Amino acid sequence: MKSDTWQQRLQRAQSALDQKTKPPGSLGELEAIAAQLSAIQDTLQPCADRARAIIFAADHGVAAEGVSAFPQAVTRQMLQNFAAGGAAINALCEAASIDLQVVDMGINGEPVERIIDRRVAPGTANLANQPAMTQSQYAQSVEAGRQLAIAAAADDINLLAIGEMGIANTTSAAALVASLCNADPAQVTGRGTGIDDSRLSNKVAVVKTALARHAEILPQHAMSCVGGFEIAAMAGVMIEALNHRLTIVVDGYIATAAALWAVRTEPACRQHLMFAHQSAEAGHGIALQQLQAKPILQLNLRLGEGSGAALCLPIIRAAAAILNEMATFEDAGVSRESTS
Amino acid sequence: MKSDTWQQRLQRAQSALDQKTKPPGSLGELEAIAAQLSAIQDTLQPCADRARAIIFAADHGVAAEGVSAFPQAVTRQMLQNFAAGGAAINALCEAASIDLQVVDMGINGEPVERIIDRRVAPGTANLANQPAMTQSQYAQSVEAGRQLAIAAAADDINLLAIGEMGIANTTSAAALVASLCNADPAQVTGRGTGIDDSRLSNKVAVVKTALARHAEILPQHAMSCVGGFEIAAMAGVMIEALNHRLTIVVDGYIATAAALWAVRTEPACRQHLMFAHQSAEAGHGIALQQLQAKPILQLNLRLGEGSGAALCLPIIRAAAAILNEMATFEDAGVSRESTS
Repeated sequence: MKSDTWQQRLQRAQSALDQKTKPPGSLGELEAIAAQLSAIQDTLQPCADRARAIIFAADHGVAAEGVSAFPQAVTRQMLQNFAAGGAAINALCEAASIDLQVVDMGINGEPVERIIDRRVAPGTANLANQPAMTQSQYAQSVEAGRQLAIAAAADDINLLAIGEMGIANTTSAAALVASLCNADPAQVTGRGTGIDDSRLSNKVAVVKTALARHAEILPQHAMSCVGGFEIAAMAGVMIEALNHRLTIVVDGYIATAAALWAVRTEPACRQHLMFAHQSAEAGHGIALQQLQAKPILQLNLRLGEGSGAALCLPIIRAAAAILNEMATFEDAGVSRESTS
Repeated sequence: MKSDTWQQRLQRAQSALDQKTKPPGSLGELEAIAAQLSAIQDTLQPCADRARAIIFAADHGVAAEGVSAFPQAVTRQMLQNFAAGGAAINALCEAASIDLQVVDMGINGEPVERIIDRRVAPGTANLANQPAMTQSQYAQSVEAGRQLAIAAAADDINLLAIGEMGIANTTSAAALVASLCNADPAQVTGRGTGIDDSRLSNKVAVVKTALARHAEILPQHAMSCVGGFEIAAMAGVMIEALNHRLTIVVDGYIATAAALWAVRTEPACRQHLMFAHQSAEAGHGIALQQLQAKPILQLNLRLGEGSGAALCLPIIRAAAAILNEMATFEDAGVSRESTS
């Protein structure tokens, strides 16, 4: 089995699906999800029972530019809310039996109890003026993500939903996507948590300024120049997934920006990524297109926190159940379609 | 509370959602689902724990016209497969902790053990030549659906996923949709389980013939002229939902054709309906538009069996969890957005 190519694994899964008692292809995208899961785990009986969501949080120096509708203090307040179980992601994980880890990659403020501490610095530098992080901070962030993926694999986790929290991090994501997709900043910069027109104009200008300032070393150093600790950590998880049988469920715009970086760094990790949803955020479609990704849900979500990824996990479990539980035409004694 | 209008209930739910620790509206369609569930149950703490799928099966005389890729015998074979636990809907219900009932509304063949018997006749008459059912058969079918909804309410079921099985029933659905939406048969007649071009041309011609034959009493008698026992029963469930606090999750094209009829018969039942997915079947979009319905999933499903409805139930449960579990800004001490 080990010597099979990725395409062979996908084909073997599709053949198995075509034996099941349903018209061929009639479960649509659910079959593609089942085939990918099967190929990642290299088995026709994939397991999707053990799911974990990891939310990476960090602050961003660029918040000083007034790019968000919320004050920076909200990043830490939301960590307290995660720890107390009151946020959307807590409710969604509880509803779907998903284990939840929240990781402080570097917020501006005191550590929060019951939050995993991987603090790199109290927020990134302001990417409008200087690189968001040093090379050392970048490497530390990616490594933190890799180690959490290794820990998940050691815990026999099958599905890892990846999301984030960080006031101003859609500005980082927009700059990353503009750089990595060679897109116009105005096309990939959106309203984030809900800014008005004047703040949106300012946000676009900030992204343009950042891209101009770092032009000479972009896109090679996009993550350290305009990224964030939590975004680099998400990329680290995705890159490390390749060394395990982990399926990574990528949440919204910011996690997709991390995926662009991960796939640029280690192209083969793309096979381990599923994309949860297409968000309302401008630019997400451009990033998904570059990744040749077809997101599972279209629910106009724009929260982050891994909320869309958590919503997808029952669908991925259902896809696994199709492969594991359904009878074949032969076993069930059901006639196949007639060829007219 | 009882005197509140539907709009007041929806607004109260949205106000509650807007107090939760997330940017207003950032959970997109999930918030609309939560608000509808709240309004149906007339409470800000809706319950979505108890879910049941009901699959209505029947045969169709029009199968004699060669409109399906599968022989009619497959309807009964699939009932045996449902009873043995080998079909897609069995796997999906098991994966999401959904109770499953399968109802024989009138297949062509012996009854199948462990399938609920509500047999009206051994299949409808051929709608290309005569009315598919008598008025008495129509009334019996609707009543069977109503009684199953009453039984579900008595079992404290919150969510009822409604689907079907019946070789040739996309032909019935296409004729119903063409009649009830005043649409061109060619636009609403699709490939069903996967017929080729020549069978598709024939299927369109059969629908046209049926509509011409019954033109004088359409659309007033659309269900009895061109419907099916299982389609009328699904409409019965939807109509009866109005008398309880049941949320009906409407599966694919055929169930949506039933919904068109139910809403025509009893417009207020529309409030109790959620639409699971937009299928690959031609005409589903037209029917959904007439119902002003925005389906939850777009996964190119075209299986039936309630498969799309079953896939939605965890998302509806997640929506309930948002209302029930999330903290408010005030409780969590999280700052609201600043007004710039």
